[in-house]
Amino acid sequence: FTTLLGIRLIVNFDSLLQGWVRSIRSQKSNLFLHLNDGSSLQSLQVVASPELNDPSLTFGSAVEVTGVLKKSPHRNQPVELEADQIHVVGECNPVDFPFKTKERHSLEYIRQFPHLRCRTNAFSSLLRVRSEATTAIHSYFKENGFVQIHTPVITSNDCEGAGELFQVEPSSAEVEEGENFFSVPAYLTVSGQLHLEVMSGAFSRVYTFGPTFRAENSQSRRHLAEFHMVEAEVSFTESLEDLTKVMEDMFRSATEHVLAHCAEDVDLFHKHVTPGHRTSYLTLLYIFYYLCYSTELYINFSSSFSQWGCDLQTEHEKYLVKHCGNIPVFVTDYPYDLKPFYARDNKDHPRHSAAAVDLLVPGVGELCGGSLREERLDLLRARLEEVGLEDTYSWYLDLRRFGSVPHGGFGLGFERYLQCILGVDSIKDVIPFPRFSHSCPL
Amino acid sequence: FTTLLGIRLIVNFDSLLQGWVRSIRSQKSNLFLHLNDGSSLQSLQVVASPELNDPSLTFGSAVEVTGVLKKSPHRNQPVELEADQIHVVGECNPVDFPFKTKERHSLEYIRQFPHLRCRTNAFSSLLRVRSEATTAIHSYFKENGFVQIHTPVITSNDCEGAGELFQVEPSSAEVEEGENFFSVPAYLTVSGQLHLEVMSGAFSRVYTFGPTFRAENSQSRRHLAEFHMVEAEVSFTESLEDLTKVMEDMFRSATEHVLAHCAEDVDLFHKHVTPGHRTSYLTLLYIFYYLCYSTELYINFSSSFSQWGCDLQTEHEKYLVKHCGNIPVFVTDYPYDLKPFYARDNKDHPRHSAAAVDLLVPGVGELCGGSLREERLDLLRARLEEVGLEDTYSWYLDLRRFGSVPHGGFGLGFERYLQCILGVDSIKDVIPFPRFSHSCPL
Repeated sequence: FTTLLGIRLIVNFDSLLQGWVRSIRSQKSNLFLHLNDGSSLQSLQVVASPELNDPSLTFGSAVEVTGVLKKSPHRNQPVELEADQIHVVGECNPVDFPFKTKERHSLEYIRQFPHLRCRTNAFSSLLRVRSEATTAIHSYFKENGFVQIHTPVITSNDCEGAGELFQVEPSSAEVEEGENFFSVPAYLTVSGQLHLEVMSGAFSRVYTFGPTFRAENSQSRRHLAEFHMVEAEVSFTESLEDLTKVMEDMFRSATEHVLAHCAEDVDLFHKHVTPGHRTSYLTLLYIFYYLCYSTELYINFSSSFSQWGCDLQTEHEKYLVKHCGNIPVFVTDYPYDLKPFYARDNKDHPRHSAAAVDLLVPGVGELCGGSLREERLDLLRARLEEVGLEDTYSWYLDLRRFGSVPHGGFGLGFERYLQCILGVDSIKDVIPFPRFSHSCPL
Repeated sequence: FTTLLGIRLIVNFDSLLQGWVRSIRSQKSNLFLHLNDGSSLQSLQVVASPELNDPSLTFGSAVEVTGVLKKSPHRNQPVELEADQIHVVGECNPVDFPFKTKERHSLEYIRQFPHLRCRTNAFSSLLRVRSEATTAIHSYFKENGFVQIHTPVITSNDCEGAGELFQVEPSSAEVEEGENFFSVPAYLTVSGQLHLEVMSGAFSRVYTFGPTFRAENSQSRRHLAEFHMVEAEVSFTESLEDLTKVMEDMFRSATEHVLAHCAEDVDLFHKHVTPGHRTSYLTLLYIFYYLCYSTELYINFSSSFSQWGCDLQTEHEKYLVKHCGNIPVFVTDYPYDLKPFYARDNKDHPRHSAAAVDLLVPGVGELCGGSLREERLDLLRARLEEVGLEDTYSWYLDLRRFGSVPHGGFGLGFERYLQCILGVDSIKDVIPFPRFSHSCPL
């Protein structure tokens, strides 16, 4: 087969075109169909004699058309298919089918039909963009010498220490009452960071891209119980700039790839699905602003927030991004006490910050969070002892006992990235099957 | 930086080499180090004056070396680094470190140290092969027009109907007693097939590559609670050959890519880790044999197994593969009653088979399982009614109500694939962090 106009054609003696009907127009002398096979937003026009019309030829039905591919007289399509035969493979009752021809349904409306919404233009565009963005991210890391690691979904550690964990046990009586299947309580991962840190004791650069979980009891447009994170860890680095450079480069390279491969799909979102956005605004996202929490942020914005040592709330993040001209903003060197045990101590008393960085972007707020990791055994042990976790993390201390290197890394919320480049308000509209409190259909 | 010999070099005024010490040899006039940074099995030789030696320069320690890169007088290495300075970044006490210089530890031994085993040659080779195989599989699908779908980990359906599910609930009291977080019981996925089938109502070709789960109470060398599956679904197909062609092509393309990018790593396995294998044996894996369960298998092998209608046990699979000359064997058209509700009825009474196919490979047994899916609404509904699942799967029936197309797909066990090409006996040795009954460290 060959791909033409995004339409896959199996060329035998005649051309065979297979796809779903996106529109039908019946004129006196001709029947016009638009067929789509999901390979692009574009449909291919089929021209047939009116005798080939059939009542089962409806919006959403699946058809096979044989015919001859010809140069089209119309400007906006290079070719069209002159049909010899039209065979309806799968009917689609227009009364029962929840989507109607020529209607532009809202993202909220189509979300009610998780098993059918991929058949709309908007959601199939989203899925193509998501697939291309995934490819782009893998390519970026591959081209830059990162080894991909499949970090585990099931884990016995709570990397972030934030609670909100899902626990995992067999559904049937595979284990004795009161015992755990894994002998220890096991959870769904909230981050692959600690497992990547294991690997950064043997590889200069590693990354992972996979599902991550939070048992947050929220149905808001910002929360999912299952989402995707891209996480990277770089060894032999002593500066946050090494990390922010990777974040910047990955962001640019993924966005450029998506625009190069799915321009029409991105355009559909900017023009119709989330109006108010323009594709040109994406170029703004290639400029990054840097703000140090400990110095600039404290001096310039302290009156807008509260005193030094407070975490940034979503509204603060949005304010900062707006104030900087709606471009991505790196905030660096957060107060030490706000950050988890693994963040590297800047040793900058009296204020005392950690070498941590967040990337804030327009419309979304925090897109990435990263830090240098505390590689010094004595400092790390002291901090773990303070919180009584030195036994739980004795394996993690081992990483600093044997050939420890200065290293750091970050995580990017993949759904938030898609929201940012497409301008989509709800995180539920950028993932194939959203899972959140009280919702897990299919 | 630039990559040379697989070693990443940051070229400033001098060359700066960062890595872990794999060997040290101290001679009267020279000190020789071998440094590895994980980018390949190869280490780079560092030549230094004996004064630069230091007691903390031990096997496993992390060092930074500055010096000048020179042409090497030795045949088996194009360049070596003449050191000006050696700085030990992270010490490694050789008494406490579980791996010893120049010892070849068994896979079983290193498995005891899940947080350190990536620092051995064998396991870092495995991780590079795994990373390249992952890249190769994504590339194969991308080049062949498949859209990648992130199918969900948390699901309310049990695709295989085999039990052995993990159930998911928040670990703390996020929900009322007796209620479910998702309102329904939620499980870890055993297959992304049904979610891919949703997508094959809008895309010609889709695939997913992600974690999959079974709550099997086994510690055998064949079982993991968490493993990775590659699953693909092809629309507008009415023949198993369309599916077996994708399996064959993906298998060949992944294996060729791995051999092209990690020849040394594969070789290490074949020569030392799993002796008895030869890399040349991989070419045998490019020839595929086809056997129809319903005709050939029944006629030629029935005395070796039991009567028609019985499933193949692992020992039968191995016997078949051996009998066919230790090449991959497709077994097609299994008895209908052995297959899940979604398998397409061949309507070949009186024997009654389903359009299902398994791919059996040497050393492993079943590597892939696939089938055409029952796309005919009436037949599918009848079968679901028989087992009382027509309400549970009303959404799945919807897929056949609206623009249904003949389609099929398959799943490949990624760890089994790695076992097959590397000749590794235990599945625990081909995954970064194995999870199984009574074992979930880290």
